[in-house]
Amino acid sequence: MNKNNVTNVSIVGIGQTPVAEHWNLSVRHLALQAMRAALEDAGLESVDAVIVGNALGGVISNQNHLGALLTDFAGMRGVEGVRVEGADASGGLALHQGVMMIASGLAQTVMIIGVEKVTDVVGSDRMSALATFLDTDYESAQGATPVGMAALIMRRYMHEYGVQLSDFANFSVNAHTNGARNANAMFRNLIKADRFASAPVVADPVNLFDAAPEGDGAAAVILTNSERAADMVPHPVAILASTVASDALAVHDRPDPLFLSAANLSASRAFERAELAPRDVDMLELHDATTVMAALSLEACGFAARGEGWKLAAENKIGLSGQLPLSTFGGLKARGNPLGATGVYQAVEAALQLRGEAGENQVVEAQVVMTQNLGGTGSTAVTHLFGK
Amino acid sequence: MNKNNVTNVSIVGIGQTPVAEHWNLSVRHLALQAMRAALEDAGLESVDAVIVGNALGGVISNQNHLGALLTDFAGMRGVEGVRVEGADASGGLALHQGVMMIASGLAQTVMIIGVEKVTDVVGSDRMSALATFLDTDYESAQGATPVGMAALIMRRYMHEYGVQLSDFANFSVNAHTNGARNANAMFRNLIKADRFASAPVVADPVNLFDAAPEGDGAAAVILTNSERAADMVPHPVAILASTVASDALAVHDRPDPLFLSAANLSASRAFERAELAPRDVDMLELHDATTVMAALSLEACGFAARGEGWKLAAENKIGLSGQLPLSTFGGLKARGNPLGATGVYQAVEAALQLRGEAGENQVVEAQVVMTQNLGGTGSTAVTHLFGK
Repeated sequence: MNKNNVTNVSIVGIGQTPVAEHWNLSVRHLALQAMRAALEDAGLESVDAVIVGNALGGVISNQNHLGALLTDFAGMRGVEGVRVEGADASGGLALHQGVMMIASGLAQTVMIIGVEKVTDVVGSDRMSALATFLDTDYESAQGATPVGMAALIMRRYMHEYGVQLSDFANFSVNAHTNGARNANAMFRNLIKADRFASAPVVADPVNLFDAAPEGDGAAAVILTNSERAADMVPHPVAILASTVASDALAVHDRPDPLFLSAANLSASRAFERAELAPRDVDMLELHDATTVMAALSLEACGFAARGEGWKLAAENKIGLSGQLPLSTFGGLKARGNPLGATGVYQAVEAALQLRGEAGENQVVEAQVVMTQNLGGTGSTAVTHLFGK
Repeated sequence: MNKNNVTNVSIVGIGQTPVAEHWNLSVRHLALQAMRAALEDAGLESVDAVIVGNALGGVISNQNHLGALLTDFAGMRGVEGVRVEGADASGGLALHQGVMMIASGLAQTVMIIGVEKVTDVVGSDRMSALATFLDTDYESAQGATPVGMAALIMRRYMHEYGVQLSDFANFSVNAHTNGARNANAMFRNLIKADRFASAPVVADPVNLFDAAPEGDGAAAVILTNSERAADMVPHPVAILASTVASDALAVHDRPDPLFLSAANLSASRAFERAELAPRDVDMLELHDATTVMAALSLEACGFAARGEGWKLAAENKIGLSGQLPLSTFGGLKARGNPLGATGVYQAVEAALQLRGEAGENQVVEAQVVMTQNLGGTGSTAVTHLFGK
C-alpha cells in the first residue's frame, strides 16, 4: 500500500457513460448506466451510501432530491443518498464527501455518482442556468456568464503577460488529440493549431476552439477503505489526498484576478497531506473549461511560474509522453464538460490510468495522478491525488 | 461523556435567525446572521469547513454554489465550503455530512449552516419550486405538489384507520402553544382545537391549520470531536447517532403509502448505533410539515403502533411536560418550515434543550433528544440522537 495514503481510502469500482447530447435519456437513466457499471466493476450489488454530484438538476430538469431518487432507481432503496452541489465542482466535492465518509469508519462502501443533463436547454436558458454558478447579485445580474467571466480573465492575462490568443492553442490541440482516442469523448475530431485563433468567437477573446462544451454525462466511482480494497479487486486505486478550498464567488472581490487562490490552497493542502510535491505528479486532469483556466491552474498549483502556465502547452510538454500530460482523455475541452459530473469523470480517468487500462490514452508508468475540479471561476477548487 | 456517543462528535456552537418573511435580507445576509451567532457561541473566528444545507437557492434565487459564497461572505475565504441538498431534508443531510467529516479526523471544526429564502416567490412559482422535491417525471409533471401528496396520504390514513380530521388537531394546537413562547417562531398565535377542522382548505383534507408554512430562515451549528468539545465550552451536546435512509421519491412506487420506510430505517439504525430505544427518548423534533406526516413519523420510529400515531396528540401526551414532547419550539407548523434550514433548526433546538437554555420551552430533565428531518414525502429521512 502506498505510504502516502493518509486518507486510507481507495477506489474499487468505476463507471462512465459517453459525454454527449443524450436527448433520449433522462437524468435518472443516464446516472443508472454509470452506477451499474461501477457496481459491476467492483463486484458489488449495493453500497452503504450514494453521494450524487449534480449542479443543475433543479434548475434545468425541475428535479431536486437526486440523492434519494438515484439511490432508489439503481435498486438500492433504503440506502442513504445525498446530493452535493458546488457549481461545476459538484463532482469533485461529492468525491471529497465520500472520502470523508469512508475515513470516518461510519460507512464501509460509498458510491459517488456525478451526473448532469444540460443539453435539454439551449441559448439564453442554458446561459441563465450556468450563471447560477457565479455571484448572482453582483455578476450574473449584470449579464455575466461563466464563459464571459473567463473571457475577461483571459483578456487581462494576455495584457499582463504579453501573450497572444494563439499561444494557448496547444491546450486545445492536445485535448482533441487525446479525445480522439477516447470512445467516451464528446468531440473526437482533431483541431489544428494554426486554425485555433480564427475559430468563431464565443466571448472575445474566448472562441469555439478554446471553450469546453457542456455535455450530458454520468460517471461513478465506488470507495472503500484501503485494507478492504486490497481484498476486493486486483487494482485498487489509492486516494492519497482529497482537499477543498474556496475563493470569492465574484472575480472583482479578489485581490488578483489572475491568481486562483482556491486552486493554490487546495493543491498546497493536498501536497502537504500526501507529502508530495508538484514534481511527483506524473499526469494531471485539470479544469480546462477554457484554456486560460488551464494556464491559471498550472500556475496556482506550482507546475509553472506566474504568467508562464501557457508555456507548458506552447512548448508541447503536455502530451501523453510529455513532462506533464494533461487532459489525457480529452479533458473538458474534448471529452466534454458535464458540469456536476466532471470531477467524477476526472477520478474515473485517473483510476483508468493507474490501473493501466487507459488503452491508447495510457500514460506510461503513471504512479501519481492529480485531478483538479473548479467551480465557477475557481471559487471552489477540489484537488485529489491518486496513487497505486 | 455519554457512553452512547459512538460518533464522538459534539455541538459546540449554535445560532439561528427568526423564521419569517425576510424580504429585506438576501440568502447571504440571512445566513451570515446565524453563522456569526454560532461562531460567537463557540468562541471561534473560523472553522475548517462549512457545509450549507439549502434546497432552493438555484431555483428561487438563481444562486447555486452557496458553499463558497457563504464561506467567503462570513469572512472565511479559503476555507472549504460545500452545499448539500435533499429537498427539505437538506439541513439534516448537511449535519450528517458534518458528523462524518469530524468523525474522519480530517477536519477539526465544521460549521453546518442551513439557510432558505423561499418567500421571494409566491403562488404557482412557489409550488413549482417545491414540486422539485417530488418525482418530477411521474408526480410533479401531473401537477402534484408536496402538500398535495400529503393530502392524498392523509385521506388514505383517515380511510384506513377510521379517524377524522379533527383527531389530528392537537399536533397543531401543541405546536402553536410552544411556538407562542419562541421568539424565533414564524407564528406565535394560539389556535383552538375546535377551530382546527374548519380552517380554510389548502389541499383537501389538509388545511391552513394543518400545513406548516414555508418561511425564510437560517440556523447554524458548529461541530468538533467530543474530547475537544469538553475543553471548549461548558455544555457541549453529544451527537449520539446520525443516520440517513431513502425511500422511493414517488409515493405510488411504495408498497404501503402509509409506512414511511426511510423514517423507520433511519430511526432503527440510529437506535441501534446509540444502543437506545424509543422509550429512552425524552423529546422529539419531527418533520410536521403536515399533521399526518407527524403521525406517520411517530409510527415509523416506534413511538406508536401503526394507525395510532394521531393518538399521542389526541390524548395530549405531546406537551412540554407530556410523555413525549413534540415540536417544543413550535415545530415546522409554528416555528415555520425554512425547508433546507429546517433540519439545522431542529439541531439548534435540541441543543438548547440539552443545555438547559430553552427558557419557557424547556423540557425538564431532557437527557436524550431525537430529531427527524424528512425530504419530500419522506423519500429522505435523517435521524439524529443527541445527549449531554
